Amino acid sequence: MIVVLKPQSEQSQVENLINWLKEQNVDVHISEGHFQTVLGLIGDTAKIDDDLVASLEIVETVKRVSEPFKSANRKFHPDDSIIDISGVKIGGGNFAIIAGPCSVESEAQMIEVSTKVKAAGAKLLRGGAFKPRTSPYDFQGLKAEGIELLLEAKKVTGMPIVTEIMNANHLPLFEHVDVIQVGARNMQNFELLKELGKTNKTILLKRGLASTLKEMLMSAEYIMAGGNENVILCERGIRTYETYTRNTLDLSAVPMLRELTHLPIIVDPSHATGLSRLVKPMAMAAAACGADGLMIEVHNNPKAALCDGAQSLTPEQFADVAKRVEAIREVVKAEYDPTF
Amino acid sequence: MIVVLKPQSEQSQVENLINWLKEQNVDVHISEGHFQTVLGLIGDTAKIDDDLVASLEIVETVKRVSEPFKSANRKFHPDDSIIDISGVKIGGGNFAIIAGPCSVESEAQMIEVSTKVKAAGAKLLRGGAFKPRTSPYDFQGLKAEGIELLLEAKKVTGMPIVTEIMNANHLPLFEHVDVIQVGARNMQNFELLKELGKTNKTILLKRGLASTLKEMLMSAEYIMAGGNENVILCERGIRTYETYTRNTLDLSAVPMLRELTHLPIIVDPSHATGLSRLVKPMAMAAAACGADGLMIEVHNNPKAALCDGAQSLTPEQFADVAKRVEAIREVVKAEYDPTF
Amino acid sequence: MIVVLKPQSEQSQVENLINWLKEQNVDVHISEGHFQTVLGLIGDTAKIDDDLVASLEIVETVKRVSEPFKSANRKFHPDDSIIDISGVKIGGGNFAIIAGPCSVESEAQMIEVSTKVKAAGAKLLRGGAFKPRTSPYDFQGLKAEGIELLLEAKKVTGMPIVTEIMNANHLPLFEHVDVIQVGARNMQNFELLKELGKTNKTILLKRGLASTLKEMLMSAEYIMAGGNENVILCERGIRTYETYTRNTLDLSAVPMLRELTHLPIIVDPSHATGLSRLVKPMAMAAAACGADGLMIEVHNNPKAALCDGAQSLTPEQFADVAKRVEAIREVVKAEYDPTF
Amino acid sequence: MIVVLKPQSEQSQVENLINWLKEQNVDVHISEGHFQTVLGLIGDTAKIDDDLVASLEIVETVKRVSEPFKSANRKFHPDDSIIDISGVKIGGGNFAIIAGPCSVESEAQMIEVSTKVKAAGAKLLRGGAFKPRTSPYDFQGLKAEGIELLLEAKKVTGMPIVTEIMNANHLPLFEHVDVIQVGARNMQNFELLKELGKTNKTILLKRGLASTLKEMLMSAEYIMAGGNENVILCERGIRTYETYTRNTLDLSAVPMLRELTHLPIIVDPSHATGLSRLVKPMAMAAAACGADGLMIEVHNNPKAALCDGAQSLTPEQFADVAKRVEAIREVVKAEYDPTF
Repeated sequence: MIVVLKPQSEQSQVENLINWLKEQNVDVHISEGHFQTVLGLIGDTAKIDDDLVASLEIVETVKRVSEPFKSANRKFHPDDSIIDISGVKIGGGNFAIIAGPCSVESEAQMIEVSTKVKAAGAKLLRGGAFKPRTSPYDFQGLKAEGIELLLEAKKVTGMPIVTEIMNANHLPLFEHVDVIQVGARNMQNFELLKELGKTNKTILLKRGLASTLKEMLMSAEYIMAGGNENVILCERGIRTYETYTRNTLDLSAVPMLRELTHLPIIVDPSHATGLSRLVKPMAMAAAACGADGLMIEVHNNPKAALCDGAQSLTPEQFADVAKRVEAIREVVKAEYDPTF
Repeated sequence: MIVVLKPQSEQSQVENLINWLKEQNVDVHISEGHFQTVLGLIGDTAKIDDDLVASLEIVETVKRVSEPFKSANRKFHPDDSIIDISGVKIGGGNFAIIAGPCSVESEAQMIEVSTKVKAAGAKLLRGGAFKPRTSPYDFQGLKAEGIELLLEAKKVTGMPIVTEIMNANHLPLFEHVDVIQVGARNMQNFELLKELGKTNKTILLKRGLASTLKEMLMSAEYIMAGGNENVILCERGIRTYETYTRNTLDLSAVPMLRELTHLPIIVDPSHATGLSRLVKPMAMAAAACGADGLMIEVHNNPKAALCDGAQSLTPEQFADVAKRVEAIREVVKAEYDPTF
Repeated sequence: MIVVLKPQSEQSQVENLINWLKEQNVDVHISEGHFQTVLGLIGDTAKIDDDLVASLEIVETVKRVSEPFKSANRKFHPDDSIIDISGVKIGGGNFAIIAGPCSVESEAQMIEVSTKVKAAGAKLLRGGAFKPRTSPYDFQGLKAEGIELLLEAKKVTGMPIVTEIMNANHLPLFEHVDVIQVGARNMQNFELLKELGKTNKTILLKRGLASTLKEMLMSAEYIMAGGNENVILCERGIRTYETYTRNTLDLSAVPMLRELTHLPIIVDPSHATGLSRLVKPMAMAAAACGADGLMIEVHNNPKAALCDGAQSLTPEQFADVAKRVEAIREVVKAEYDPTF
Repeated sequence: MIVVLKPQSEQSQVENLINWLKEQNVDVHISEGHFQTVLGLIGDTAKIDDDLVASLEIVETVKRVSEPFKSANRKFHPDDSIIDISGVKIGGGNFAIIAGPCSVESEAQMIEVSTKVKAAGAKLLRGGAFKPRTSPYDFQGLKAEGIELLLEAKKVTGMPIVTEIMNANHLPLFEHVDVIQVGARNMQNFELLKELGKTNKTILLKRGLASTLKEMLMSAEYIMAGGNENVILCERGIRTYETYTRNTLDLSAVPMLRELTHLPIIVDPSHATGLSRLVKPMAMAAAACGADGLMIEVHNNPKAALCDGAQSLTPEQFADVAKRVEAIREVVKAEYDPTF
């Protein structure tokens, strides 16, 4: 951490600051210029509060050199994390597609969709039981019943299931769920993250509506700091001023996160674009830049979907997407598989 | 709601759609052009799901004419709501300043700050007991003890208190709190909003980090739909690419929200700018464009604040700001007070 | 175009509006609801000014159904445009990589870089002679001398050249330049676009720093309205609040533009990310989602580049990228080539 | 400027860098930590290219401590600049309102509007002769004839005139224009800025559609580096994801720029919000936070305005706004007038 002091700071104040910093167990190297003094902090600066230091009267600016995340940081964990979800591996060269409807609607739907997406190559089944909707008047999901229907489909197809949690009090309902999803609107619901950190479930953490990569990694850190290292990151588009697409899919996030963290990184082209006809090219692009997996909305009858139908594929369209993604994976596998 | 159909849609599909819409209890007016047919939906369209309709194969685009919020909507409630907080009124021409430290630190601090801000004209006391921090390693607040210290200060000064909630399970701790704040990161924590909708506490709802005004109103609607109409909206800056200020304070939100809703609207210049020296001009500007109140960070010793010190004022600086704001209020009162 | 009128508009004003619209040579279909009247305009609405109509006292909102761009619109020109640049084709299944340094520095540099990128598969040579720099004190390019050096390299390698124009008065210097680039900061320099519309040069139009796709297409329309239909669109990242990358590369723009326009679409991963180590994965992703080409910065000695060195590849790194992109193209060719 | 080197950089490379930096006439202070070395550059670092240094293999990150703008920088010019426009002063406590129509349409219009806005307190007359329009099919202004009509109005009312330039070749037409406006889309048209830097006209520089304050100051620097120090900065809203208003007016820019530069700062609430009914509150807010002036669209018949009518006031509405702004100015004058 670099602390640039204001010109003409009082010597006694500078000394107070240096002493306080040393009490926080960091070393302080002092560089005095003609006009300004710069302090270089060495050691475990993750616990030093930027805001606190920046607020001091004699401080002009503060810049972190090392990242404030530790458990998620590739520097301290150079090898890719491989997460094993009831036998399905993701990360470290293992690629997996998660597919299924936005909302769980009925048993017939779940059996049909899960059977078809499994046949087409999907490894995990998704489906929303608890739905975060902008309007209190929109459909909020089947809740506990939705989880039951997912478990039914899991029994039939053997696919591990992924579903979103909105309230830590619902955790008992998630006992047999394989992957718990934290949605974009809850990415900084720190109370929820802390509770998930106490479980040993795999957590699929979606990037916030307008979050930076650093904030996403800090949210992963909340989960990991509690002892749960099974975290998968999911890029799902961010909010911009472009209106043709629902969000702007930030695919540079994939190689950038790859550099910053050892955690697996997947991409959700359905929510990112909001348009089913853009899912195929963006799924292919995500595979090409090294994503460890995809999350794709598939509905047996998109026209009747209770939510987000405009972004759902039919099972037939999904099969085509999965085939093209597989072809891209063949080309890039050697590029992104550390064991190759 | 206007539904524009795609050119050459099949007549049978169009009829299916019209029938389905009528089943949702809305009237449908049909306008057939040379190329495209446009449906105008009349009636209670708030419960019609835009996404669902937009997802249909024959639909090109959907546009809402009326707003999807009802309880918060000025159209259905033309008069300003006046909220009475243990005797302090806000809204409908009543202006109030909320002041206090970002974090509650000690009894001495709270007594000193609250006494001074009250003397300077503040009507409510704020202080963070539960703190949402981006990093799990940063100070998270004194929690229950923090609320106790706020209640101590309330006993001494008689000022109603405002403090943030992060978890609905903590509600019992807020029994004697006058105003419960929902922070920016929880603006779309719908589970929390629903629980707050079941209480009769005044809720101070802060705009999300990168939320639109419509989303903020829909979040207010979540609280109000549960029966609690005591909601105050708070503009606190939104995320942009400008880096000199922490956020971009969107003051146009004040007159825009005034038009859209009857709820009181306050402004938080401290979090918006992140710089204590910008608080005064922005507080004055907020008063000038018709805000019903302000929320300002004040700390007895900003240099030692455990968080967000860079944006805190000293009690002396606050007194100066309050005086200037009062002068602006004198000029604009007639402009914004409907009872004048 | 849909015009929603305000409730209780005066009948005489509504009639005035309808008459005025008919004078603009559009048909008007009227749909009267219980509360609101909706007008549907049919015909050539591209010349109707949205702002003007929206400004009328009786108008609540205006929504375009058809796009305001015509020459660039795929609806009126269903087949992909194929642009022939001195024998190098781009668009309609033809893929081409443009490579070269950010700034032209010397003859030796240009000969070395162009020879090497050609050997690695690049089809066009780029190099900046006129450089738009944020600071007046930064290097502004070799100007006329830079164009001479590009033409030297063209003589040696036979590669057509691409270079940026900043001032229409410089057009005579571009007589032998094959592709004239309009940079992001000039995307809405309409005076420049109009002048380029009078030439028959191929124009490479970069997306503005924070432009929407619609604005980019309208800028293409400025060039095409002048009679020059040789326009290539270039996605180069847009401005957001993410700071790890210089801009946020919006790859969804590729399939979205593909749908909206017949013009070729290329991607510049170097400027988009600002980081040479992200160029390879993003170039592969761009090819995977259907880009017609790439523009990549290559420098013989990135450490000494006079500008933008952090995003330049060495010729050896470029050869590796080109090979991987070629492999992706093999897989996706059938997907994006209309003649397949 | 602070340069943080990568851990384990080769000593010879570090020495090369230090020698090169010294050749650029800056002093280099070296601070060696356990893991990383930090260089502090002292002296005239404005001419050092950040990008170049950041691109070096051994450099991890670069941070500017001093601003890269000099002529516009308050540090080197502590007193407010006061610009005299044919007798009308702006800056340093002098407040002025610029008013007039978006587009010049006719002599009768200009005489009527200018007479009325002058009577209401406006000091300068604006009117667009050359209009930057997103679509080539929209009205582009009366051009040379428009300037003639402005000069007619000036003759009648004696008000200095403000009008936009889009092409440096048109400069001869601006000979009798008092203030030349550079529009948002041309804020980084560096060729135009350089030409304006060679004149002695007052330049009103509008903030770009999505520009940072630093970029706006660097664009002012382009003009000032040419010798023309008569620059007025204009905040006119920036692009965000909020859709109720056309742009997001960033009023914090006023006190922030006040700190960074000595140049006068005005605010354009008409273009910022795009809604005439928000002009009054935002004009009052701008005055309250210390703007040196306002630019407000006024049209004698907003319903018939050829462009941007939705944001125009009638002369009567303008008179009301001017009166309220005057009342705010009375309150805040002492706050912002350095001569008080």
